[in-house]
Amino acid sequence: IPAIRERPPMPPTLILPRPDDFHVHLRNGMVRFLATPFTAEHFGYALVMPNTRPCPILTAEDAMNYRRDLMQYFPENKDFHPLMSIQITDKTTPDMITGTKAIVTAGKLYPEGVTTNSDNGVRDFKRLYPVFEAMQKEGLVLCLHGESPDHNISGLNREAAFLPQLREIAIKFPGLQIVLEHITTHDAIREVESLPNNVAATITAHHLWITIDDIIGYSQRSQGKLRPHNFCKPIAKHEFDRQALCHAATSGNPKFFFGSDSAPHPVDDKECSRVCAGCFTSPVALSILAEVFERMNALHLLEDFLSVHGKNFYGLPPRMNAKKITLIKESWVVNGSTSADWPNADYRRPILIIPFLAGETLTWRVT
Amino acid sequence: IPAIRERPPMPPTLILPRPDDFHVHLRNGMVRFLATPFTAEHFGYALVMPNTRPCPILTAEDAMNYRRDLMQYFPENKDFHPLMSIQITDKTTPDMITGTKAIVTAGKLYPEGVTTNSDNGVRDFKRLYPVFEAMQKEGLVLCLHGESPDHNISGLNREAAFLPQLREIAIKFPGLQIVLEHITTHDAIREVESLPNNVAATITAHHLWITIDDIIGYSQRSQGKLRPHNFCKPIAKHEFDRQALCHAATSGNPKFFFGSDSAPHPVDDKECSRVCAGCFTSPVALSILAEVFERMNALHLLEDFLSVHGKNFYGLPPRMNAKKITLIKESWVVNGSTSADWPNADYRRPILIIPFLAGETLTWRVT
Repeated sequence: IPAIRERPPMPPTLILPRPDDFHVHLRNGMVRFLATPFTAEHFGYALVMPNTRPCPILTAEDAMNYRRDLMQYFPENKDFHPLMSIQITDKTTPDMITGTKAIVTAGKLYPEGVTTNSDNGVRDFKRLYPVFEAMQKEGLVLCLHGESPDHNISGLNREAAFLPQLREIAIKFPGLQIVLEHITTHDAIREVESLPNNVAATITAHHLWITIDDIIGYSQRSQGKLRPHNFCKPIAKHEFDRQALCHAATSGNPKFFFGSDSAPHPVDDKECSRVCAGCFTSPVALSILAEVFERMNALHLLEDFLSVHGKNFYGLPPRMNAKKITLIKESWVVNGSTSADWPNADYRRPILIIPFLAGETLTWRVT
Repeated sequence: IPAIRERPPMPPTLILPRPDDFHVHLRNGMVRFLATPFTAEHFGYALVMPNTRPCPILTAEDAMNYRRDLMQYFPENKDFHPLMSIQITDKTTPDMITGTKAIVTAGKLYPEGVTTNSDNGVRDFKRLYPVFEAMQKEGLVLCLHGESPDHNISGLNREAAFLPQLREIAIKFPGLQIVLEHITTHDAIREVESLPNNVAATITAHHLWITIDDIIGYSQRSQGKLRPHNFCKPIAKHEFDRQALCHAATSGNPKFFFGSDSAPHPVDDKECSRVCAGCFTSPVALSILAEVFERMNALHLLEDFLSVHGKNFYGLPPRMNAKKITLIKESWVVNGSTSADWPNADYRRPILIIPFLAGETLTWRVT
């Protein structure tokens, strides 16, 4: 007689409508081959950032070509829908905005020199008011990297120092949809909450997870070491700020939604003497979010954060037939690295990218 | 007729009595071959830190052996005089202190886990009071790494959080000479100033030069990049603190003197995913100090900071016949790296160490 085995209990499972990522760097060159599949596999809408190298995406034509380039490797994937952005620079004119809505979703603005590939960022926002006017009319969203470029202000205070600028633009252009990207501070949350409904904010997974101490080697888990793979701009702030971000993300407030700011760099640009800003979070972001929302007793609000608030703010239709995403509560260890050997790669050696939290254990796994 | 050439004007020149370094890591293994010559060439007294790997310097015997080891390559150098320290751990007993004064100058105490090679640091200072008592009696100096080990306190506040501990020990043992090492904050300066004369502090060159923004990529010169070679413990703080340190160093107050905390690491431990704390400043420290003191209009006080206050606090005789050091005002570019190929090295490949400010230009040069 065969022994009767009890069936093991099913682990808790989350089935979610396909999530969106309203801030992702897919890059170009070899890196895009590595980064794009992670986004294409798990996300529906993905707002693709325009600060590519050597040529940023500056016009609707650039955006169209870039989109075609990104999509060529996913001809079968009907669920992945990249939304394109152009970079707003000192040279952007209202003419470059008008009539682009069918191709361009958003204009991304970096203050000068604040992060990776932002040397053609803007110093004088006022000179761009005619461009903002045109964006308002055209219905493009203005995405702001919200850090003051003033080198006399400490990095930890640069986001707070940018908020008056945000307020000015938001009040001046009440019909312009504005997203304060990858917010990191309690101050920024309060400001976004208090501004009219044309202002929203994206929150990343990594800013819900780490603080400045996880970068500069003072948290318990950093074991005294500086951690380049946790380095991003805006830099993660204090525990007080991290907690405020967790509360904002899980508050149900439609002004806050997900944008990963996943930013892959070859390992040689992360483990070196001058480390590029950016965490490659696409492979782990959904697992992190599930764990954070669970800890906050807010798993029932994860769907809003991942696939409702963002679409509503951007005025995008839901995609009823897109494949759902399933997360199960099962520990897994994040791969140490990801590399690829694409058929048409003309690189001398494979490019290696280390994901955020490589080697660490997470408790929710995407199946 | 040969043209009469004007002799170029002599550049400003500083001739100083041989300076002392009251806090330096010379390491062991291959790294000591690279690090020690830089200290031996420019410094007289050098207080050598005991947190070597794999075996820390815990007893007078360890210290004697370590000193012999360090000196074997400088048999002719009568100017270089290493002073030895032992590490005070939970296992140190008063017996290990008594009778060691001829060999041991200081006991170094790390709170548990605060920096490189501090896993055998101390959690409960009170249990060491009998050891402090013995040190007071023996005339050994207590050198404190002044950071709280509490992981709930942000790294930027750990030094301030340690100050009550310092005060308690200083008041309890009024005959114990105590040095708060490598201070980084305005708060620590005020505390050292206000405590009795048994308390002094060392100041490094790099903490007079950089701030947290030079590490996390927000200063102008960091060009947006994380800079592992600027990473040290305690981490450099804000501009406000850096300015307070410059004022303290150039104040003429005998409580403040030089300790480089020069801490060499092989490049593989600095340009990697888990970066060790420590800046290798020995090759550049005197140039940095001359530039800082010049900017503060205090070149006439550099000698006190470098070779008077420290000796006085440690009760060491001046060394009249030691070779003087000459600095001239002449720009030079800091070498990108230093490596050595010592005859008896059994290493598979040469070890490379990147000095602090590698590739940058300094205005004073040691001749």
